[in-house]
Amino acid sequence: MNQNRALTAKSLGEHKIIQIIQEHLTLMPNMPVPFGDDVSAINLNQKQVAVLKTDMLVAKTDVPQEMTLFQAARKALIMNISDFASKGVQPTAALVALGLPAGFTQKKIEEIADGLNAGAQEYDTYIIGGDTSEASDLIVSVSLYGIAEKSALMLRSGAKPGDILAVTGFFGKSAAGLRLLFGGCLASNNAKNLIDAVLVPKARLTEGLALGGCGLVTASMDSSDGLAWTLHELANFSNVGFELDTIPVAPEVKRFSELNSLDAAELALYGGEEYELVVTVKLEGWSAAVAAVQGVGGKLLPIGKATEGKQILLKTKSKRNTIEARGWEHFKSQV
Amino acid sequence: MNQNRALTAKSLGEHKIIQIIQEHLTLMPNMPVPFGDDVSAINLNQKQVAVLKTDMLVAKTDVPQEMTLFQAARKALIMNISDFASKGVQPTAALVALGLPAGFTQKKIEEIADGLNAGAQEYDTYIIGGDTSEASDLIVSVSLYGIAEKSALMLRSGAKPGDILAVTGFFGKSAAGLRLLFGGCLASNNAKNLIDAVLVPKARLTEGLALGGCGLVTASMDSSDGLAWTLHELANFSNVGFELDTIPVAPEVKRFSELNSLDAAELALYGGEEYELVVTVKLEGWSAAVAAVQGVGGKLLPIGKATEGKQILLKTKSKRNTIEARGWEHFKSQV
Repeated sequence: MNQNRALTAKSLGEHKIIQIIQEHLTLMPNMPVPFGDDVSAINLNQKQVAVLKTDMLVAKTDVPQEMTLFQAARKALIMNISDFASKGVQPTAALVALGLPAGFTQKKIEEIADGLNAGAQEYDTYIIGGDTSEASDLIVSVSLYGIAEKSALMLRSGAKPGDILAVTGFFGKSAAGLRLLFGGCLASNNAKNLIDAVLVPKARLTEGLALGGCGLVTASMDSSDGLAWTLHELANFSNVGFELDTIPVAPEVKRFSELNSLDAAELALYGGEEYELVVTVKLEGWSAAVAAVQGVGGKLLPIGKATEGKQILLKTKSKRNTIEARGWEHFKSQV
Repeated sequence: MNQNRALTAKSLGEHKIIQIIQEHLTLMPNMPVPFGDDVSAINLNQKQVAVLKTDMLVAKTDVPQEMTLFQAARKALIMNISDFASKGVQPTAALVALGLPAGFTQKKIEEIADGLNAGAQEYDTYIIGGDTSEASDLIVSVSLYGIAEKSALMLRSGAKPGDILAVTGFFGKSAAGLRLLFGGCLASNNAKNLIDAVLVPKARLTEGLALGGCGLVTASMDSSDGLAWTLHELANFSNVGFELDTIPVAPEVKRFSELNSLDAAELALYGGEEYELVVTVKLEGWSAAVAAVQGVGGKLLPIGKATEGKQILLKTKSKRNTIEARGWEHFKSQV
């Protein structure tokens, strides 16, 4: 056996595992969305595509002890809806395959069902089917379905040098919230906000639909693996680099970091488990894109621009730092 | 707490759990396929529906020790494709959410990817996306997508008294194969057939598409929970009963049962993990339906008829027995 083939999932990490699997699959001809983007799609007709996504929540790795079953089930929906949001697609329906430990009570099962339904209802979608199996961990495997105009899909691959880089909100809250939940950190007065970012995350669907509708976004991705990782992925798919003039650290994360002598930028860049959208917008369309997002009650914060050079740099008055390609990764990461 | 709500998944069983979950979900208006049928669907336009299915394979309960990872991954596809087959729908694409133990090697991951791809390719479909997470068990959660003419969908609900009850093959092989794999049974000369029924199951997609195409089937379901359970489900959904004049026991299961002093009919009726289609056909269309299935190289075996009375009876020259509503059920069943 080739020595490499003896490496374990833990040492390979999620990204390498996905690459290995892809290399063993026969590619569907004419895929409208390439492998590795936030969603998959299939041509329905000349104009429309069916959009599909599946993402699995595993209690052992994705659910802190303090999270209720209602919250965990809801989060499984949000993880998937966030990917749809990043492409500008309204989910029509969801299916859920559940793995349940044999000892789970009816009360727990009802909490899970209520959490699933709440997540779906918040984003105007429905759970229309699923499956239940016995498993050692609680597993909530969600599949989403929707329809989109092909021309309106916001892929990872369209950023051009000069485009404005923007985000739909501030970062670092989930990373700070997890540290509060795991103990050992002092709580600032906005601790509830930070903890809620972990327990009750929101998908930026309204913002994504507004951005998709305005036709001014050149590339988009959700930030569930962390801001830094997202920037590197967008850069790779689009064959550009990024120059940031600011790290969009949430104000409450700044206070939390000062109180606990932590690096706020580190939390915002590499924390992960956040569901903001990271997009690039045509320079000439910037005001209209901001207006579109504000029109639905959201924010669009400029944080830099796309560049010819392929690096991801933070350029402030005093320094010029490289943003590393790391983030939250299944198998490898530990909080 | 209500005393019932303290019951565990193990004592509730899969069917009751699914019912509990359904009762907590908001129903999508105008669902073209009701909750609980083999697949879910969404209206695309006046004539067509998008068809969706998700089913999860958990190594702990669904994979005998003798099954390779290639076979397990392939089986996860087959389980889902069989449900599409029973509705007469060609799957267009699949997504796969994988839960992998951290210690799995690259070699094992490649075997899984190859098995997934083989299952997809056998049935002219493609894996177009997915997700990977760390889990205690191997979990292979598959979602299938396809498009169908609404009028051609074979649901569970259309059987009418007088319709012919038929199956696409003989039963009992998986139940016998499992007994051989687990040891303690004598192997007949066709043992490989029985074991292959467990390790390399086939979905009756060609047969399902032929049956869907001929428009003569009034109700259809796959038999993955066992023939007896399937008959009861079809009866409940269609509000009919069935009178069987034969149990379609596979010849090799008869020999295996004689050799091991087992009840062949018991294996065929209650074994489960078989992927034949169980259908009802309009009396006047019987010859044409048989011809359609034979035309694609398949079998359509008549085993009885649908009745006004709601019982499921086996009526032979010498006796008249009730077929019980039991079969393979997650949480409750043990081989």
